[in-house]
Amino acid sequence: MTSASIPASAASRSPEEARALFRSGTSGPTAGWAAGHTQANLISVPADWAYDMLLFCQRNPKACPVLDVTDVGSWTTPLAPDADLRTDLPRYRVWENGELTDEPTDVVDRWRDDLVSFLIGCSFTFEWALSDAGVPLRHVEQGRNVSMYVTERPCRPAGRLHGPMVVSMRHVPPEHLSAAIEETALLPAVHGGPVHCGDPAGLGIDDLARPDFGDPVAAEPGDIPVFWACGVTPQAAVMASRPPFAITHAPGRMFVTDARDEQYRVA
Amino acid sequence: MTSASIPASAASRSPEEARALFRSGTSGPTAGWAAGHTQANLISVPADWAYDMLLFCQRNPKACPVLDVTDVGSWTTPLAPDADLRTDLPRYRVWENGELTDEPTDVVDRWRDDLVSFLIGCSFTFEWALSDAGVPLRHVEQGRNVSMYVTERPCRPAGRLHGPMVVSMRHVPPEHLSAAIEETALLPAVHGGPVHCGDPAGLGIDDLARPDFGDPVAAEPGDIPVFWACGVTPQAAVMASRPPFAITHAPGRMFVTDARDEQYRVA
Repeated sequence: MTSASIPASAASRSPEEARALFRSGTSGPTAGWAAGHTQANLISVPADWAYDMLLFCQRNPKACPVLDVTDVGSWTTPLAPDADLRTDLPRYRVWENGELTDEPTDVVDRWRDDLVSFLIGCSFTFEWALSDAGVPLRHVEQGRNVSMYVTERPCRPAGRLHGPMVVSMRHVPPEHLSAAIEETALLPAVHGGPVHCGDPAGLGIDDLARPDFGDPVAAEPGDIPVFWACGVTPQAAVMASRPPFAITHAPGRMFVTDARDEQYRVA
Repeated sequence: MTSASIPASAASRSPEEARALFRSGTSGPTAGWAAGHTQANLISVPADWAYDMLLFCQRNPKACPVLDVTDVGSWTTPLAPDADLRTDLPRYRVWENGELTDEPTDVVDRWRDDLVSFLIGCSFTFEWALSDAGVPLRHVEQGRNVSMYVTERPCRPAGRLHGPMVVSMRHVPPEHLSAAIEETALLPAVHGGPVHCGDPAGLGIDDLARPDFGDPVAAEPGDIPVFWACGVTPQAAVMASRPPFAITHAPGRMFVTDARDEQYRVA
């Protein structure tokens, strides 16, 4: 899937307006939408798998910082009380036995009464802090989805769930590296500081130009690739661990909440 | 239970030495022991209750920041690989249907194969940061356990678990208040910044001299009472929610881990 450019008006949309657009079919990535509002990854699994998933998140907090867990069967969350998790994301993925079987724009017909939904912090949230600190965002400048890669670093398993860590990558000019690390470290609920800077081989990534999810993003001369743990990690766990059923967001197509980024800042 | 004074040598003990002493019967509070090493609250529940407990922790992260969750039946943790969770705390509490039925110094005879153990961050951990920042610790100066109170603030329920937030209180001179808040805010894994400063009535606490757990601690003139969410909160949830069985630490008698406080500092 290639990405539509981010509309110029996206940043000034309220979360409600953004969700209404996604509900009515707008399906592009959500980077740059609804300035200052927290975005979330979605993973919904049958109740029988909920403990394993919650424990997997607890054991891998950089990749899977949990912002909310719904009650069984519920499609609502206090993070956006008027939202419907089945319709309000731009695009979903449906998984059966670890295989991707569909990428619809809503999952009303696929919902099950036994689903428990996990909303997991997303690095799009800290991009406003990066931008405010003067750190350029190459993918937003280029109107593309962020680049994401499956690494060779294993997550700590939990029950039946195991899999590799997924990371998002941003090209950062060296003079902005310190600010990029400091700003994101103060936001552990949305992945916190980077897990790796520099040579992609350190994470087992062969070619930055061929991301596993999202779009390739061009570097400017001197840029250093900086890698943050990514909320697509549960999807890699679904692929590796093959639960009978799961619904997730499509990479880069997040749930836009009513929460403000500021409320997740540590100090 | 009144507290023995903290031995002068406690701070310089290694975590292994501290656990060996507790294993052989030393049963006092652990504030001031094993300088710079992370301490943890313990709550062990039957596997049937583990999801509710993990979700309760996720929904109440100030009170219940999870440091580790064991596999079912296991009494070991990566936080201290050579430790035995059944013997290495100074004192335990055994709960049946929400009633406290015993306070033994080990729980080898009470262990069950279906127990899942949660290790939850403890504010004793951040006392080293407070001390390094020049903040006086009245309870340590007075050789007493920290004062803890059941508040009138409800936790967010999770499944069958509900109950009030418990807090620990430290008297802080006003000139040290800023440092106390800043230092602890950077340690969200061990309760983070305070939940309340000043008038105890704001938390529904009638009389600071009559704590619900721990010892009364005398204030110096001008001191302000500062309240942090406390890892005894799961015990209040056990009392309110009455699971058939649980084992916890006794308030103030923590599990001393091999982990260093520094590894939980956000920035």
